Formats: sequence, structure tokens, C-alpha cells
Amino acid sequence: MRVIGLGLLGLGNVGAGVVKLLADNAAAIEARLGARVEVRRIAVQQAEKRRLVEVDKKLVTTRARDVIDDPSVDVVIELIGGTEPAREYVLGAIAKGKHVVTANKALLAYHGDELLAACAENNVEIYYEASVGGGIPLIRALREGLASDRIDEVIGIVNGTSNFILTQMTEQGRDFNEVLAEAQKAGYAEADPTLDVGGGDAAHKLAVLAALCFGTKIDFTKVFFEGIDKLTQRDFAYAERFGYTIKLLAIGKDHGDSIELRVHPTMVPKRWLLASVGGVFNAVYVNSQALGQSMYYGRGAGMMPTAVAVVSDVIEIARTLLAGAPGTRASVPRAKRPERRIRDIGELESRYYLRFGVEDRPGVLAQLAGILGDHDISIAEVVQEGRRDPQRPASVVIVTHRARESNVQAALAAIGKLPAASEPTQLVRIYETRP
Amino acid sequence: MRVIGLGLLGLGNVGAGVVKLLADNAAAIEARLGARVEVRRIAVQQAEKRRLVEVDKKLVTTRARDVIDDPSVDVVIELIGGTEPAREYVLGAIAKGKHVVTANKALLAYHGDELLAACAENNVEIYYEASVGGGIPLIRALREGLASDRIDEVIGIVNGTSNFILTQMTEQGRDFNEVLAEAQKAGYAEADPTLDVGGGDAAHKLAVLAALCFGTKIDFTKVFFEGIDKLTQRDFAYAERFGYTIKLLAIGKDHGDSIELRVHPTMVPKRWLLASVGGVFNAVYVNSQALGQSMYYGRGAGMMPTAVAVVSDVIEIARTLLAGAPGTRASVPRAKRPERRIRDIGELESRYYLRFGVEDRPGVLAQLAGILGDHDISIAEVVQEGRRDPQRPASVVIVTHRARESNVQAALAAIGKLPAASEPTQLVRIYETRP
Repeated sequence: MRVIGLGLLGLGNVGAGVVKLLADNAAAIEARLGARVEVRRIAVQQAEKRRLVEVDKKLVTTRARDVIDDPSVDVVIELIGGTEPAREYVLGAIAKGKHVVTANKALLAYHGDELLAACAENNVEIYYEASVGGGIPLIRALREGLASDRIDEVIGIVNGTSNFILTQMTEQGRDFNEVLAEAQKAGYAEADPTLDVGGGDAAHKLAVLAALCFGTKIDFTKVFFEGIDKLTQRDFAYAERFGYTIKLLAIGKDHGDSIELRVHPTMVPKRWLLASVGGVFNAVYVNSQALGQSMYYGRGAGMMPTAVAVVSDVIEIARTLLAGAPGTRASVPRAKRPERRIRDIGELESRYYLRFGVEDRPGVLAQLAGILGDHDISIAEVVQEGRRDPQRPASVVIVTHRARESNVQAALAAIGKLPAASEPTQLVRIYETRP
Repeated sequence: MRVIGLGLLGLGNVGAGVVKLLADNAAAIEARLGARVEVRRIAVQQAEKRRLVEVDKKLVTTRARDVIDDPSVDVVIELIGGTEPAREYVLGAIAKGKHVVTANKALLAYHGDELLAACAENNVEIYYEASVGGGIPLIRALREGLASDRIDEVIGIVNGTSNFILTQMTEQGRDFNEVLAEAQKAGYAEADPTLDVGGGDAAHKLAVLAALCFGTKIDFTKVFFEGIDKLTQRDFAYAERFGYTIKLLAIGKDHGDSIELRVHPTMVPKRWLLASVGGVFNAVYVNSQALGQSMYYGRGAGMMPTAVAVVSDVIEIARTLLAGAPGTRASVPRAKRPERRIRDIGELESRYYLRFGVEDRPGVLAQLAGILGDHDISIAEVVQEGRRDPQRPASVVIVTHRARESNVQAALAAIGKLPAASEPTQLVRIYETRP
């Protein structure tokens, strides 16, 4: 029986999960493929460290090159994360004619084009199901299921840590820092949570999704992102009052001539499906021409969900290898479309929630409204509340009709210079779903 | 360049959609496969009928055998629906060594085993992505993405017509018959709506899902199903009051030694993701061991969504054919598990919503509660409302704790014999989500 050889770079949680799944499902995988899948080399940083699974010590090495250069390794699974040295290793494996499976969204966001080009040159594939939405078979669905469709828009809740924090803030009325500390204790947030709560991780994933869905290169430095760390309980209370829930959305939209890519906290209608995606769960919502709206939901992280995704990629590659097929071109977007520029956030047309901290004196609301009007921003709703705490400025909350972001930013800059302005204005973009 | 020949049985909406998608995406499909896909024969009932797409008249025949026997046809796409003569045609195609793509859930529900056996014997594949959840790439996800996982439970909103009606009844407070008539006018419901609103169509789809997810044969006659046509506005009002939404759920659960399969209107917590699946949309929620909870959502019907699914199956088969691979065994569940009996509905353990129509006289509530207690059913909540309309019986609504269905049915039979009982009792099962 033919054997497909695997090499692992990294044996942390996900790596251990992969080893475990392959062992637990060996018979089923063998029956399905008509071949065996075998781990043949594992590179780790510390050879002696205790692992979540037992592995044959002879397989373990501390040099990544031992895995990459091993002629019995057909597929290299990269699970070390980060851009370097992961990039170097993956390019090395591709150059050696090995297929690659990776869960590394940062690597793909920054170097996806380079890796795809190297794959094309060496006639191998790179699969990355685990890079977005953990175990949700999402990348495959976008690539295969919609093979004859055209995706116009993709909207994701793709950072479980942020979604957990937002869910707790919504449901329990607690503050960001308190919930973050709890999430860190529970293992849902890293000691340095910047990448998660700052929106960077979601932006990496958005870049991966957009490159796949829109069939174009993405310059990651042009992806706009903003985190959830500035949100306060007051914003959640107003969101509730206006019928919204606050979610960290990653939004990608193909405008034909240009592409919109943005990650930021967003008010979404409470009845919308994405509003019900709670806790550490992820979801990706897709608008496409033939299929219309669809959504994929599940656990976006965790040892086993991520391992499931990696193993499903391995099986897919094994099928290709066994068929002796010239690559399934899985890495190549369905239809190459022309490269398009990424829009600046200033070009966005959206509705906005604006919460102003102003001194409670006559004429302030008129000043705010006047400046907004001067910037072509029309007001849909206003709430001005009596100041309860004399130490704190009064709150004026304005929900706008659709306006252009550059105008909104200019208006906020002007408002910030008013003598009555006593706090920076809070801005949350609103996502309008279709009727 | 190699060409994969297709034969169509049926050229209604979906068939026209398939022809259109293949034409519109010909270049992309060719780039992806390195081969062309070409429709070579189309069987229709009336050759002269006007079609939604233009097709070469030379391809059209009124004899299905012309398609099945055509040596230039590699893949037969069955879109005529119903069990006969679809079964005969599909078996004929398989016997001729042709792969089959079908959207026909009734055929699969009743004859799935026979078709799979014929495929295995003739070393061909049957693909059926379009049979459940329309264009949602759900069957593929269950088969491939979870290849190394084990599914314990699958819960679907899989009948768009029923979901549309329930959504309207919930949101607009209108009655079943009124909404059904409107749905028929809008083309969301058939002239004879029995299969949709009676639960039969959802039961067919549940049988298809269960066979795939649980790796076992399903005797369709043992699938319990109940429709939405007995629900009244009063039930929706109570559901709202208790924090529930009413959905027609198709529930399949693998208990290891036996399998639970049931379709019925169900009260689900309003905050649960499935409660937000509105209108004609479908969703399938899956509980699996490694991945945990996941959900797939999208349009469950319609010309283009269904056509997308059919074309994605065609592309998958084309890949196999081109690779010269011995079948991808897609039709075969991941891991064969022993055959298990399907549980009787009487074995169900659930919470129940019971609405009694009783005469408004002293001691009635005590009688009801007594009979329930005698049958080992404990009460979680009671609402008894003063009779507003003297023509109608008083309403007593009881929500039970978990109880056994056979006990509940026995209790309801006893209650039906009470002199005070003036209306049949309404029973709606409640689905409890995990915390």
C-alpha cells in the first residue's frame, strides 16, 4: 500500500491534535484513500519538552531542514506561526517539490503572493483551511462549492477572542478590561492580546479570504483595521437601545474596479444572523451572485478544530498525489481577475454611531449638528441625555444616515476643536443588512 | 483538450440554470480543470416547450434512454425529481458506467442504499450536493471537511417553504392559511403544499443527511415527521412569551446503539443561531466530536443556488475522471459503522409545550396536573388565562420538564377523555440548546 509521508514543523497544541487525529482515524483515512498517511519527521524547538501526544523520538529533530530535506516527506505541515522563519521554511519545502499545509494567516497575509508564485513554479499546492475559521470547512467551500459562482462580499467574525469579549460585554454589562482579564485567565486571550483585540489577526484573515474570494493580490499594509479596546459600556447600552449588537467584523467587498477591506467594531442589527454568533465562535457570511447569501459557522480556534482542518487538507493533497494528477490548482483562485486597488477607508460610505463628550451648555447640540451638516452628513437619530455625573461630560449620541467617512473624519476633527468638546468622540460604523 | 460529456435528464429551472452556469463560467472551469465540460444530450418531456435557456435542438430528445445510452455522455445529471422513473433512469446510467449527479432527495431517501450499492458495483460515483440545502456546499463539507471527525448530531432547517411560512407567522402575527396562500402566490409554495408543510420533504432530506453523517442505512419509513399546518397564532404568542421561536427542525442524533430521526415544529430558544434563520433560508447545524458545533446557512432552493450545487458536483466528478482515479469514494461514508435501529418517537426524551383547550370550571387544572403527574411528567411552567371569548374553551398552557414522549402521549390520551376537554391538545416539542 502506498504511503504518503508527512513532515511537521511544530508540535504544539495543533501539531499534537494532528498526530492524534491521524492515529485515531487511521483506518477510516486508509479506507477512504486506499493509502496510508504517516508522520515521518517532526521539527520542534526543544527536543526534550513534554508533549500532549507521544511520538517516536527518532522522528523528532530540532532542525527544520531535516523535515524539509527528508525525501520521504511528501507534505510539509507548517504550524510554527508568525512570518519568519515560517516563510523561509515554507519556501524551502516548496522549492523541494513538497506540498504545504499551513494554519498561518500572518504568513499568508504578508507573503501569500510569493508563496503562490513559488507553488506554481514548482507545481505543488499550498492548502490553508486552518488559517481562517479554524475547523469550519470554509476555505474549501469558497474554493470548490462556489466554483461556478462569483463572490461579491465576504463578512467575517473571525477573531474568537474579540467575539468572546464583546459577547461578555453585551450580555453581562461589564467593562473591556475586566472581561479581557477573565479571557486571559480562561485561555481565550493571549498574555499580549494586541493582535486579537487590536484587529490585526482579523485583518490577516480578511486578507486571506479576500485574495481567495476576489481572485486578486492583496497588499496587507492597505487593509484598514481598528480594535475593540476603545469600546465602553455606554456604547453597548446605546447599541441595545438602537436595536444593534456590536461585533468585530472583517468586511471585504469587491466593487469591480476596487476592493474595500476593513476590520472594525461594527453595530449590526440584532436580528441579523451574525448578531447571534456568540462567544469564541467564528462565522463567515458570503454574498455571491448565483448562490446569494450563505454563512459558515463554527469554532474558530482550539486544538482539535484546527487539527481537523489541517488533516482535511492533508487528505485532499493525498488524493491529488495518489491520482498522480498535476495538482488540483487548489491554490489558484477560480478565475483570475484584474488586480484592483484597495480603497482607502476615507472612501467608505456608511452609517455612523457618534458619541460626543461635550460640556452641558446651551447651543452645543446646534454646533454639533451644524458642523455635521457642513460636512454633508445628515442625522437620522439624536439622543441627548441629562448629565447624571457632574464629573463627566454630557453625552450626545448621533446616528447618521449614510455618509462618506472622509467627511465624517473631517467633521470630527472640527468638532474636536470646539471649546465645548471635552472627550474624544466615539465612532462606531453601522452595517446595514439588506431588507 | 479532453472533454467531459454531460447528459441532462430534465430541463426545467434547475436544468436551465446548469446550462447557463456552464456557459457563463466555461473559461474558468476550463482553466481550473484543464478540460472542457460539455452538455451532449438533454432529455425532456416535451421537445417543443419554451425553455429558460437556448439549447441546440439536436441535443434534445424525449427519450431518457438516448441520454443514458449515449457513449459520449460521462456524467448523467438527473433533475426530473420523484422516485419513479428517476430511479430506473439513474440505475440505468450507473449500469452503463456513468457517474450521476442528482438533486433528488426523495429518490435518495427511498432508494439511496440501492443506488450506492449499484455505484460500488460499477465503480462510479453518485453526487447529491443539491439534494439538501440547495446551493449551500454542505454535503461536501460534511463528507470532506469533517473527514477525520465523527458527527453525533445534525439539526436542519431544510424546508424553505415551511420556514418562510413560520417566519411570516412569527413576525406578522398572521394565520397559517393566509400565509400559505401568499407563499403560493409568490412561488414559495407549490399548489399542493403537502410535501413541504407536512414535513415529508424535510424528512427526505434528514434521511439523506443521516445516512451520510452517521454512516448507516436509513429505512425512510421509520423517520418520524409532523408538519406545521396545525400551529395557530396562539402557539406563536406563547412561544414568544416563553422566549422561544417555532421552527420546523429535522433532528438526527446518533446514540451509538440507535439513531433518533424526527421532523416536527419545534420551539427553540430565541437567542439560538437557528432561531435567526428566517424566510426561505436553510441551515444545517452539526455537532461533532473534534470540531464541536458548526453551521452551514444559505438559500435552500431556487434555480441558481441549486444549479451551483449541481455544477460543483460535476466539477468534482470531472476532477476524478481526469485524474483517472478509481473513484474518490465520495458516495461512501467516511467510516462504515454498524447498522443501527431507528428509534421510535415514543422513546424521545424532551421538554414539551402543551396547550389544552378545556372548559373553564373548577378543578380542571388539578385534573390535568394529576394526569401528567401520574405519567411521570413534571411541570416547569403553567399559564392559565381567563377565557376572553365565551365561544372558545379556556387555554391552559403547560411547559414540562424533560419527559418521555410515550408517557406524554398516554397522558394526552387520558386527558382527551376528560369531560372538561373540549379541544384536542396542541403539542410542540422544545429543543434545549447547550448552555
